[in-house]
Amino acid sequence: MLGDEPGWGVRVRVWVERDGRKVLGPGRVELLGLIDTHHSISAAARAMGMSYRRAWELVRDTNEAAGEPLVELTTGGAGGGGATLTSRGRDVLALYARISTRITGAADEVGGPTRVG
Amino acid sequence: MLGDEPGWGVRVRVWVERDGRKVLGPGRVELLGLIDTHHSISAAARAMGMSYRRAWELVRDTNEAAGEPLVELTTGGAGGGGATLTSRGRDVLALYARISTRITGAADEVGGPTRVG
Repeated sequence: MLGDEPGWGVRVRVWVERDGRKVLGPGRVELLGLIDTHHSISAAARAMGMSYRRAWELVRDTNEAAGEPLVELTTGGAGGGGATLTSRGRDVLALYARISTRITGAADEVGGPTRVG
Repeated sequence: MLGDEPGWGVRVRVWVERDGRKVLGPGRVELLGLIDTHHSISAAARAMGMSYRRAWELVRDTNEAAGEPLVELTTGGAGGGGATLTSRGRDVLALYARISTRITGAADEVGGPTRVG
């Protein structure tokens, strides 16, 4: 099969949208996952080699596109505010993970090695 | 489930690459399918509202990326040359169709209405 031949591959990109506007794609999924781990936008941004400003803008755009917060900022404390995922944010991330897993499996069956990104 | 809520949806983009270079994505698949129907790059370009030049460049790039012709030009005749898919071209198109179908099905199961484009 073509997909098994050296050099050939299938690529898949998955994103979730609402009213035609992107809510989550691979980059935002990584960012939200890191925010969930670090409870901090700045730590998540550092882990991705991204500026705090860019990460913050992505979070704001994600929340706006979703029509409700997926990431919540928490204020106060000596180190400034932290950030956490809302339960809705966790739901959307889990949906994305399920879809990516299923899609990778489905594409692998017919087309050889697949990367989802 | 999120995917069933009004306004929310999952989008998937699939492409086939060789040595990291795109061979086929949704647009090229449409173009090659129309070339297969019309046996003509210019007729296929017209059907897509695309210039002949752009269609010809896409065909050339597709063939180069594949490392062998997926579309073959046939010269001669009063109306200029025609174009046909090679058997390899048909194989790659069929692979793409199988993958898209499987992926749409897999994503629909977990995420509600999906469009593959």
